[in-house]
Amino acid sequence: MQLEGVYSVLPTPFTAAGELDEESLRRVIDLFVTAGVDGVTALGVTGEVARLDDSERRRVLDVVVQQVNGRIGVVAGTTSEGTRTCIAYSRYARETGATAVMVSPPRMPKLNSEAVVRHYKTLADAVDIEIVVQDYPPISGFAMEPSLLARIATEIPTARTIKLEDPPTPVKTSRILEACGDTEVRIFGGLGAVFLLEELLAGATGAMTGFAFPEILVRIVSLFRAGRVDEAADLFYRAVPLMRFEFQEGIGMAIRKEVLHRRGVLTSAATRPPAASLDVPTREALDRVMKWVEANGSRT
Amino acid sequence: MQLEGVYSVLPTPFTAAGELDEESLRRVIDLFVTAGVDGVTALGVTGEVARLDDSERRRVLDVVVQQVNGRIGVVAGTTSEGTRTCIAYSRYARETGATAVMVSPPRMPKLNSEAVVRHYKTLADAVDIEIVVQDYPPISGFAMEPSLLARIATEIPTARTIKLEDPPTPVKTSRILEACGDTEVRIFGGLGAVFLLEELLAGATGAMTGFAFPEILVRIVSLFRAGRVDEAADLFYRAVPLMRFEFQEGIGMAIRKEVLHRRGVLTSAATRPPAASLDVPTREALDRVMKWVEANGSRT
Amino acid sequence: MQLEGVYSVLPTPFTAAGELDEESLRRVIDLFVTAGVDGVTALGVTGEVARLDDSERRRVLDVVVQQVNGRIGVVAGTTSEGTRTCIAYSRYARETGATAVMVSPPRMPKLNSEAVVRHYKTLADAVDIEIVVQDYPPISGFAMEPSLLARIATEIPTARTIKLEDPPTPVKTSRILEACGDTEVRIFGGLGAVFLLEELLAGATGAMTGFAFPEILVRIVSLFRAGRVDEAADLFYRAVPLMRFEFQEGIGMAIRKEVLHRRGVLTSAATRPPAASLDVPTREALDRVMKWVEANGSRT
Amino acid sequence: MQLEGVYSVLPTPFTAAGELDEESLRRVIDLFVTAGVDGVTALGVTGEVARLDDSERRRVLDVVVQQVNGRIGVVAGTTSEGTRTCIAYSRYARETGATAVMVSPPRMPKLNSEAVVRHYKTLADAVDIEIVVQDYPPISGFAMEPSLLARIATEIPTARTIKLEDPPTPVKTSRILEACGDTEVRIFGGLGAVFLLEELLAGATGAMTGFAFPEILVRIVSLFRAGRVDEAADLFYRAVPLMRFEFQEGIGMAIRKEVLHRRGVLTSAATRPPAASLDVPTREALDRVMKWVEANGSRT
Repeated sequence: MQLEGVYSVLPTPFTAAGELDEESLRRVIDLFVTAGVDGVTALGVTGEVARLDDSERRRVLDVVVQQVNGRIGVVAGTTSEGTRTCIAYSRYARETGATAVMVSPPRMPKLNSEAVVRHYKTLADAVDIEIVVQDYPPISGFAMEPSLLARIATEIPTARTIKLEDPPTPVKTSRILEACGDTEVRIFGGLGAVFLLEELLAGATGAMTGFAFPEILVRIVSLFRAGRVDEAADLFYRAVPLMRFEFQEGIGMAIRKEVLHRRGVLTSAATRPPAASLDVPTREALDRVMKWVEANGSRT
Repeated sequence: MQLEGVYSVLPTPFTAAGELDEESLRRVIDLFVTAGVDGVTALGVTGEVARLDDSERRRVLDVVVQQVNGRIGVVAGTTSEGTRTCIAYSRYARETGATAVMVSPPRMPKLNSEAVVRHYKTLADAVDIEIVVQDYPPISGFAMEPSLLARIATEIPTARTIKLEDPPTPVKTSRILEACGDTEVRIFGGLGAVFLLEELLAGATGAMTGFAFPEILVRIVSLFRAGRVDEAADLFYRAVPLMRFEFQEGIGMAIRKEVLHRRGVLTSAATRPPAASLDVPTREALDRVMKWVEANGSRT
Repeated sequence: MQLEGVYSVLPTPFTAAGELDEESLRRVIDLFVTAGVDGVTALGVTGEVARLDDSERRRVLDVVVQQVNGRIGVVAGTTSEGTRTCIAYSRYARETGATAVMVSPPRMPKLNSEAVVRHYKTLADAVDIEIVVQDYPPISGFAMEPSLLARIATEIPTARTIKLEDPPTPVKTSRILEACGDTEVRIFGGLGAVFLLEELLAGATGAMTGFAFPEILVRIVSLFRAGRVDEAADLFYRAVPLMRFEFQEGIGMAIRKEVLHRRGVLTSAATRPPAASLDVPTREALDRVMKWVEANGSRT
Repeated sequence: MQLEGVYSVLPTPFTAAGELDEESLRRVIDLFVTAGVDGVTALGVTGEVARLDDSERRRVLDVVVQQVNGRIGVVAGTTSEGTRTCIAYSRYARETGATAVMVSPPRMPKLNSEAVVRHYKTLADAVDIEIVVQDYPPISGFAMEPSLLARIATEIPTARTIKLEDPPTPVKTSRILEACGDTEVRIFGGLGAVFLLEELLAGATGAMTGFAFPEILVRIVSLFRAGRVDEAADLFYRAVPLMRFEFQEGIGMAIRKEVLHRRGVLTSAATRPPAASLDVPTREALDRVMKWVEANGSRT
């Protein structure tokens, strides 16, 4: 499975009572496969991974790999504050059949570049699997500069894929590619695809994000790769109102689940507390922007 | 002058050599007045106020008030880490003829709600001028909850206007209005107008932001107020691709200046170091999105 | 078991290979019981809880409760980013026989006071056990003001014990006691006991921290309670050089383990990566300050 | 004037009404000169520089240089969010007769290493004066790793003095010295001297901090340099209770001013709002620790 193109970050569906809802998870996966994505990413921030226990983490991954059934790639989030736990999660991902793992720097006071490199190296030495380096400073609490990302890519051959979520991402994409020189890296945009076009223009391979209409991402990336940049751009601009709305800080996860509920794949849009739920004005504003994008967004 | 509708946050134009460029500043003001805005805001974050010295601050305000010449409102940013300095800046603003001052909580380790309220109260007691309470946590380092904003509005009659820049802003707009109960407050959206429509739907009075095409903001707000919400929304969605592009973290100010340079009002798009300047891919991406918005954005 | 006096926060001992070292854990507990502490706290930040998996968490708590064997109190750290997981951890703690649970606000972007109160209330409704509210902003990412801590104490009768680690802690102790009015709360100092004397003077009940010589804390608190404040102060001041050394950001945990290794209870001083280990100058400086405190610290 | 040994960071004295109090400032300087310090640092964080306006900044520096009158060194804080303002402040410092300037990285969202280096280089090219690089992440919002500090020292010959305030400072001192290799740098400890002994053991040149009994710092550093390390350590440990008390987050400045008021040099201990003032328990705890240090601290 190639780590490129469009990877959809999976939500973790819950029942209204807060239990894992495997059937909804299977339906989301099928929706995303049908949308034409190159892979799915389980157990990311969007997957509310911080609110799952260890057995739920394993169960989610089992279901994902089983339901995907080799049709597309599977990236498993295995970020942990301890190197040892990160390795254990990553081993489980490999054994289960994941294509790659996605790992943020470990959250820790006084973290530094040397410790970050050591963390990724120890992981790479311990587990033979592709590593997606996630650069999302608000979550990890650590900003990785282009030179550090280039150092990781150079020193660790299995860690040459980056999920870039440190804005301005188009500029940082250019800087990382420059810093990497001859070392080939793949950069995925994230952040709800709100800058996907500009990231592609700067050299990104695609998007890895939880936008609930991945078929739109697939079309944008396909058009772009086919050299039909104006069409890609037009489609992108028409989808941006929804992308931006969905990717609101603090309630983005709840909006995505609501959209997937409306699309018929999630039985419940429930998130786990303390995550916020949606108020009425947000639901109404979502109605409005979804209708507009349906009417205007797919013209190309 | 009413504190409502659209207030455009002014950039501070510099020559290529880094000097204040008063002629460009006058042209920006005239562009904005012609666009139909209700007021301008000088010496905000977008105005690179942190990179001006005290005499430049005064000069900018003098030029702004003089050039506006009573045609629209003038809000002066007077945020300071010291209450005394904030008062001094605010007095100067009042004497110069500003309509209102805009004040963030003072940046300070271990700041707390009591100190914030005391800061605003001391200012209100010392200077008889309307106060716009700016809620922009990444700048002030302090998150004001709706209950605190409501307390300020209740206890300080001159501090009932809020510039809200703490996402998700539509949700927070609703919560603040709820928390304020019978105390009438006016909430301006900010953040590049990227959520203007949803803020208006939630009860905001308008936008106070530096978007370089304020005529679009004016039309959105006018349509909205006229009850023509669908048209307002359509216009907004078509402008969002540019709003979002302009409002990129770290380079937003440089992009706005570049747009105003292209619009013929700024002689130079220079920002003051250490502010970032624009790389070639960003300029090209800007070309593209500006053309698209010109072609598609004003259809309504 | 009373929640007052001195509670020692337990490290989680590891073998040189990184495995849980239960024998060392039992020896630490016996050392602390012999030192005369009122209780121990397992699975705190000092216990490297973020680097344990779920089964290790359970095992540590089993061993602690078993080894303590009713001789003193046992507080179990059950902080989690999800309310549901926090409840599950707390239920396990209660069933295992813990005296209380210790809970920080859940780490989450855009957390707010309402969500914090709801988190504690839901926990209190679900599990019938005393809750120690941990106020340690660098870990939780959220600063709880005295009014919020008072609100929690007032609304949730089982949440009237606070572990206060938001400096300046003596001042905040006074403010919280004021804010609580008639609602009786107990405040433990933390932060390595570096401000223990001043916290006691301000009204704290004692200390809950990982200082590796808890017998000193016990004597300070006993003298203080006996009204022998000058002697308590003298003893405290003579111990402060070591307390402050031990409580260094980023390496505090490693220093504590080194001290407990030197005291003969930990077989290995190993921490789990990415935690830092000690360099030679730090070890030598530790020698020096330990010798000084031995020679000067117990004169009273 | 040499940049080594003990530099005392000056408070900015205010009258009870909040005006600059030049007479008190002169008395503080004389106290510090008499204490035997190698220099003073004006306009630092402890000097409440963020609450001075531009003309007050100039006036403070004029008074300091005049009163010092060549007897010891004078470092002028010239940190600014803009490179241009930093240069202007530094030029003024040079013209006035300062020995060196002290500069933190400019506070800015999305700051990165390249911009930091450029900031210092531009300053060094523009003004011919020694630069003290201040590494105080909570103030600047940016953590400089040892490799970055070494790069600055290597590339900018006038920027080879570091005021290190990023704990654990003893460890970081070692790492910076290692990273600098053959490039000789001088590292001053800060942070209230709470780790001065360990910083000296790790290779620091001395202390640059606002501790209100600089004569103790002078003796510690002298004894240490004379090879009388045990005596230096003994003296240090006996002073630590006061150092730590004085250096409390949020109220440290107020405590220092109170001590200098008690020592008879400051007419008023007033700080400028929104800075916190001292409550009664803090004053009493200060009485206690001052008496203890007087009785026990100078025995050596």
